[in-house]
Amino acid sequence: MIPSPKQIAFAHQLADASAAVIRPYYRSGLAIDDKSDASPVTQADREAELAMRALINECRPQDGIIGEEFGTERDDADWVWVLDPVDGTKAFITGRPLFVTLIGLLYRGVPVLGVINQPIAHERWVGVVGQGATLNDQPITVSEIAEMSRARIGTTGPQYFSDAGRAAFMDLQKNGRFTVYGGDGYQYALVATGGLDLVIEEGLKLHDFAAVAPVVIAAGGIMTDWQGEALTRTSSGRVIAAATPAMYQIALNAMKAV
Amino acid sequence: MIPSPKQIAFAHQLADASAAVIRPYYRSGLAIDDKSDASPVTQADREAELAMRALINECRPQDGIIGEEFGTERDDADWVWVLDPVDGTKAFITGRPLFVTLIGLLYRGVPVLGVINQPIAHERWVGVVGQGATLNDQPITVSEIAEMSRARIGTTGPQYFSDAGRAAFMDLQKNGRFTVYGGDGYQYALVATGGLDLVIEEGLKLHDFAAVAPVVIAAGGIMTDWQGEALTRTSSGRVIAAATPAMYQIALNAMKAV
Repeated sequence: MIPSPKQIAFAHQLADASAAVIRPYYRSGLAIDDKSDASPVTQADREAELAMRALINECRPQDGIIGEEFGTERDDADWVWVLDPVDGTKAFITGRPLFVTLIGLLYRGVPVLGVINQPIAHERWVGVVGQGATLNDQPITVSEIAEMSRARIGTTGPQYFSDAGRAAFMDLQKNGRFTVYGGDGYQYALVATGGLDLVIEEGLKLHDFAAVAPVVIAAGGIMTDWQGEALTRTSSGRVIAAATPAMYQIALNAMKAV
Repeated sequence: MIPSPKQIAFAHQLADASAAVIRPYYRSGLAIDDKSDASPVTQADREAELAMRALINECRPQDGIIGEEFGTERDDADWVWVLDPVDGTKAFITGRPLFVTLIGLLYRGVPVLGVINQPIAHERWVGVVGQGATLNDQPITVSEIAEMSRARIGTTGPQYFSDAGRAAFMDLQKNGRFTVYGGDGYQYALVATGGLDLVIEEGLKLHDFAAVAPVVIAAGGIMTDWQGEALTRTSSGRVIAAATPAMYQIALNAMKAV
């Protein structure tokens, strides 16, 4: 099932609303390093999710919601919005414009539409499965890199893998051109834009992958779990995103036995 | 010796000129992953340095130049400009707006003025030792964090340390709040803005630290080598940048025996 133009326009509306809430908190009180519940990152996270939930409840009351901060409403609906207002908390806290707002849309548990929005740099990636991907309304595609020796690889950090997952990943990435750490959801936007050729991660939640998988897939890439299964609402959180079938097959061979 | 208003204005002119050259190359041909000498990052690096050298030779012919790409001219002058047009090559290659242009000014071998310029996000940090630091002309200061347990720590990657340096760093960072990798010169801008409390690195070249040290110091931070010596043209490239004296002392104690 392909999302309607109305749903796509509504996804932009959600991104606009969350960005307006988040922007004033960015780099506010950086030097104070507030860890309380009233810290800028926590306020940005909560208020942005509340703004998006209010819009969904007002404009699309038949759709469900799964939010990182405030949980689940009507999640037995055919269409369910999956929200992560601030993905990349450490990027936000240290003042790097790499944190993103993730907005995914599931149809019967399968991600079909994704928005990756960077509100400070004004970068918005949108992917609609079956309809292509864009960055700020310009069409984008994954890279053509098919050899491991040329692969630009990303993962948020080796510490996020299980021991077995880390061993397999570290072994694989040695054969690539280079590996960059950090980045969270931003990495998948870079796969879709051709800047990274392979991202492998473990321990992701639904709100981490629901929005990014449609962007990667709509840009011509491949994104599945480590068994080669399409990502759905019940996936394990072990993911591979690859630019090309050859790159994907190499990664799958390395990770599927873990 | 404090740089004159004319020299500070000229540093801005260099940053403007390099940014104009670099911007069109950013994310151009990402998906092609050209590794030849004509790759976008190499072209951006070379052409931006040539543009800055031409300006120095035209407007300040008595000053010396040390450039990452094209070497040294008149480096026995009292005032020497130190140029690194694209610091953070991997960020540039993968399409992350974290690479920076570094422009430092030495007086008799001591860094006294620094510019850290991010041409895509339009972020410009300027530090003049003795006169304060700014981000886009707004005054900035380092954080007040003095306890290790609250420290937000940065380093570009564990692979850039010697074995002894890495062991000391890894041991120290375990006691911090968290460590973020990646970032190159951008990290020092974040120390100056209060987003990171401690950065420790090894193997830096003069063009890596000449511009960033004045920004950190002018923002109220401390930046020296691992022996506690002020950074100069002949420093070893082992550096500590800290927000507060207490944080600095903890880091110095950990690293000075390496």
